[in-house]
Amino acid sequence: MTAPLALRLVEDRKRVDGCLEALWQARPSVEPRLEAAMRYAVLGGGKRLRPVLVYAAGRALGATDAELDAPAVAIELIHAYSLAHDDLPAMDDDDLRRGQPTLHKAFDEATAILAGDALQALAFEVLAGTRHARLAALVATLASAAGRQGMVAGQALDLAAVGGQPDVAALAHMHRHKTGALISAALRLGGVIAVAEDDPRLAALAAYGDAIGLAFQIHDDVLDVIGDTQVLGKTSGADAARDKPTYPSLLGLDGARAKADGLLDDALAALVPLGERGTVLAELARYMIERDH
Amino acid sequence: MTAPLALRLVEDRKRVDGCLEALWQARPSVEPRLEAAMRYAVLGGGKRLRPVLVYAAGRALGATDAELDAPAVAIELIHAYSLAHDDLPAMDDDDLRRGQPTLHKAFDEATAILAGDALQALAFEVLAGTRHARLAALVATLASAAGRQGMVAGQALDLAAVGGQPDVAALAHMHRHKTGALISAALRLGGVIAVAEDDPRLAALAAYGDAIGLAFQIHDDVLDVIGDTQVLGKTSGADAARDKPTYPSLLGLDGARAKADGLLDDALAALVPLGERGTVLAELARYMIERDH
Repeated sequence: MTAPLALRLVEDRKRVDGCLEALWQARPSVEPRLEAAMRYAVLGGGKRLRPVLVYAAGRALGATDAELDAPAVAIELIHAYSLAHDDLPAMDDDDLRRGQPTLHKAFDEATAILAGDALQALAFEVLAGTRHARLAALVATLASAAGRQGMVAGQALDLAAVGGQPDVAALAHMHRHKTGALISAALRLGGVIAVAEDDPRLAALAAYGDAIGLAFQIHDDVLDVIGDTQVLGKTSGADAARDKPTYPSLLGLDGARAKADGLLDDALAALVPLGERGTVLAELARYMIERDH
Repeated sequence: MTAPLALRLVEDRKRVDGCLEALWQARPSVEPRLEAAMRYAVLGGGKRLRPVLVYAAGRALGATDAELDAPAVAIELIHAYSLAHDDLPAMDDDDLRRGQPTLHKAFDEATAILAGDALQALAFEVLAGTRHARLAALVATLASAAGRQGMVAGQALDLAAVGGQPDVAALAHMHRHKTGALISAALRLGGVIAVAEDDPRLAALAAYGDAIGLAFQIHDDVLDVIGDTQVLGKTSGADAARDKPTYPSLLGLDGARAKADGLLDDALAALVPLGERGTVLAELARYMIERDH
């Protein structure tokens, strides 16, 4: 990772963390334990990758940071709720997330379900608060990426695949929904803040997002094999332990890495129409398949 | 219930059921089991009270039926998701809903969680699809009523109260969030389709909604005591069995009925600014505290 990108990531994370923190400063709390659980789910660290992508895509097309805060916050709220629900005993049954007890371990199962539900609602409330001229596109993009044709469908496909023998195509299909949909949405949200819905640069961002979304997930699978629990902040080797199909298990470690490299090339090619303005997005793509956690 | 209102209810339910059914006709399904669970949660009957209120409020202020379909569908999707999640073992642990196995009994717990999550996202996707000039108000109204300051907060307050000794004020506080927020939102959604956000008739609808929302819940508690399981479609006596505080347990059956009657008077008084156009809403208020299921 280049030094300017590292600095950029630190600043963007700080920026979105400040915006997220502010969500709990303005209003009286109806149910303090629920609010505490929501805060725990959102403010426990994390890479803030999706907000970083909102900012990068928006800036590349000319949006201001202030305009990008709301979609950056909204997509992180959706991501945080999905992790809280995915960790539940009825789903992945994980005890550890970002080096801390998962939400239902720190609170209880009912509170984890409710906090997740409220985080999803809050994401759309935050978007509505912008009263942006292209609000319909913002809400449609986020809702569609989060729901039955996006992230939730991906999680359902993932659960259905446990113990099965999917091929590489089926695995990519699952990941394109489970992780890719929200990553692509991050780019589109940032882009739509800046330019009209039919601007061809949004299609470039979509192609870029599709490639890095999958590459990101393949690299996640690779890290699950080679990473150690302390650096990852979650239990390494967890996929193999629960007999989950992964890229390394289907393609071998080298094959999985080669696949990620190929997708990186696709992502960089997609950025060509953006010219110089695509530089940060290009650096981000490299970072996403080189990170160690 | 008057004959015209009875007919109106039948027609509105048919109308919104048709719109809900259509949500599964337009698109290919990514994960058929997830979609089946979503359909099961939404299309298993129900009174469609919230859509009926959207239509009634919207028509009272001059909106067309076609404009009101999307908010009617959206609020029913939120309601359906909340029932699916409330019934989960970690929450109310109910086996029966509308005379049928609850969602997690008919499918499984993970699918019930995911279907609920996807239904919430779909609600906002449907609203965004309207591209209505007052979309920001529509999304903000629904998200705020559904989330941490509305329905989800109410469910959290309800769970926290089990086995405790709340007084009538605490019980009303819980119900105003758990049920009242979404009922008030139904009225506001219908109203905002027709008139500007600062129109004083929206405040009249809000006061009406606050009163009937609570009256509806008190009557629900009363039905839980006096109703029988077959007519209710859910287990009667369930509140007492799990030591849940209710209006009848705090005020006695007659006291609870008197409270509901007083709220009915409040609701009718709130409708005065609407004149003749408030007639159907007035009939609905009466129906809501006289129904037998």
